[in-house]
Amino acid sequence: MYALLWDGHTPRVVDHPDPVAGNGVVVRVTLAGICNTDLEITKGYMGFRGVLGHEVCGTVEAGPPEWRGKRVVSEINFGCGTCPTCASGLRRHCRTRRVMGILGADGAFAERVAVPVANLHAVPDTVPDEAAVFAEPLAAAFEILEQVHVQPGTECVVLGDGKLGLLVAQVLFQTGARVLAVGKHASKLRILARRGIDTVLLRDWNGAPADLVVEASGTAAGFATAVAATRPRGTVVLKSTVAEGAPLNLAPVVINEIAVVGSRCGSFEPALRALASRSVDVRALVAARFPLRDGVTALRHAAAPGVLKVLLEG
Amino acid sequence: MYALLWDGHTPRVVDHPDPVAGNGVVVRVTLAGICNTDLEITKGYMGFRGVLGHEVCGTVEAGPPEWRGKRVVSEINFGCGTCPTCASGLRRHCRTRRVMGILGADGAFAERVAVPVANLHAVPDTVPDEAAVFAEPLAAAFEILEQVHVQPGTECVVLGDGKLGLLVAQVLFQTGARVLAVGKHASKLRILARRGIDTVLLRDWNGAPADLVVEASGTAAGFATAVAATRPRGTVVLKSTVAEGAPLNLAPVVINEIAVVGSRCGSFEPALRALASRSVDVRALVAARFPLRDGVTALRHAAAPGVLKVLLEG
Repeated sequence: MYALLWDGHTPRVVDHPDPVAGNGVVVRVTLAGICNTDLEITKGYMGFRGVLGHEVCGTVEAGPPEWRGKRVVSEINFGCGTCPTCASGLRRHCRTRRVMGILGADGAFAERVAVPVANLHAVPDTVPDEAAVFAEPLAAAFEILEQVHVQPGTECVVLGDGKLGLLVAQVLFQTGARVLAVGKHASKLRILARRGIDTVLLRDWNGAPADLVVEASGTAAGFATAVAATRPRGTVVLKSTVAEGAPLNLAPVVINEIAVVGSRCGSFEPALRALASRSVDVRALVAARFPLRDGVTALRHAAAPGVLKVLLEG
Repeated sequence: MYALLWDGHTPRVVDHPDPVAGNGVVVRVTLAGICNTDLEITKGYMGFRGVLGHEVCGTVEAGPPEWRGKRVVSEINFGCGTCPTCASGLRRHCRTRRVMGILGADGAFAERVAVPVANLHAVPDTVPDEAAVFAEPLAAAFEILEQVHVQPGTECVVLGDGKLGLLVAQVLFQTGARVLAVGKHASKLRILARRGIDTVLLRDWNGAPADLVVEASGTAAGFATAVAATRPRGTVVLKSTVAEGAPLNLAPVVINEIAVVGSRCGSFEPALRALASRSVDVRALVAARFPLRDGVTALRHAAAPGVLKVLLEG
């Protein structure tokens, strides 16, 4: 089959062995989304080698009969299923986990991808493929609500109007909280403004301290900006995974007693409910679709400034 | 009066104008404690200039009649008293605050120090001066319990067997939680072991991940050690105030979804209750006492490796 492979040097579309179902399933990929993490991997993040891609919608081609032919999305962390962490329901933190397209498991920028049954979620009929493929990043946005108690009175700032920032702002807004989205692109912020969310261009922002600041700018410099815009005893949620460490001054975190909360993958259930109810607009985030064989061009396009979600057709 | 002044270059004992009570009080200093923050200030932290010192026990010499002659300790953050932050009870986070011996207000390494009435706490008769002078750092240890829900089932690690680490370990232990204190000095760890707290030398520690890790090593390198020793979804409490920023990799914070909680000053009430009930051992932490006129020698002694609390006699 065709697959977009990262060998540590150059991303290339290659002829790659078909995956086998094993105890899991093989999913025939319909659509896969390019995430900033994929771009960071091609800069060295996680030291991954293999088929990229972890946002996927497809149809089960091989595996247990009850799943065959089903339209599915897949969670990306493959936990062992037996350790105390998995037993507690946190398979996505299993110490021996593999992660689709990120750590020890081939990803979904391919015609087919193998995933464990435990990771599958059936897609409701009312959710089209082009929305379902957002289940993974939308789950990552909902993850914030699992970690931090966002109340209607919580003043929230979302830093970054990229793919994840736009999802996070919408999810926070649904809680009834006041949300201010800060970004560099008027065209992207308009997606939020259309839904009633306050927005401001970074250059016009007064930086007034908020209760909760979500750092989703995808930059190492975003951390200091987020801390400076958080009130004493407030919370910074770190959503960006960046390849490089940077010199950071933690004194403001101590002096203002700020809680800095790292946040990664989330449960798919709330994301699928939001997609089915259309309470979050994901279709406006699609910038382009490419056939899998043009995967290298698609990656390059996704890395261009200002480009939102690029989808690959499996 | 004599005072230990920091002019940005050299700490010196000088003849300094007596403070005036104004709307507050003047406290005749009996004992003052040297804290690691004082030492960091002499390396540039906070850019402070003035009389050092913020851990103090003394007697009110001038001010309202109801306070005159009372033995007191003083909170160190002088809030405006009128802003929303002060009104909410968080005077120690007032944006226009002065901080005794740290920011815009002369400190207690002097014969006398001026403080607002709102900052005073009467010392119970059963608490001797040499214990009362620990009210401020002990309050900083209790602050952790105001920020993080430490339960009996919480596995805690305290990194650092310095003055603050020894107080933090004792405070956490009182909640019923399992506490492991990690340090470099067998003699200091014995103070905790005598109270039933588990201890281990850093070189012998296996680094097994805990629910809560308190970074009280006073070093910039402690952050990475603390993060590595925290379980997924666990909490790191940052207690160290260090003068310098350092290159930090935040990826493990995001990947393991760790909450990093900065922690500074606390309420004095729980500290005074613990001192009165002797549930926390502070007397064992006293390494030496110096008269104020030997303040420079005292600072140097406090900065020597392995030395615990050095007290100045006002």
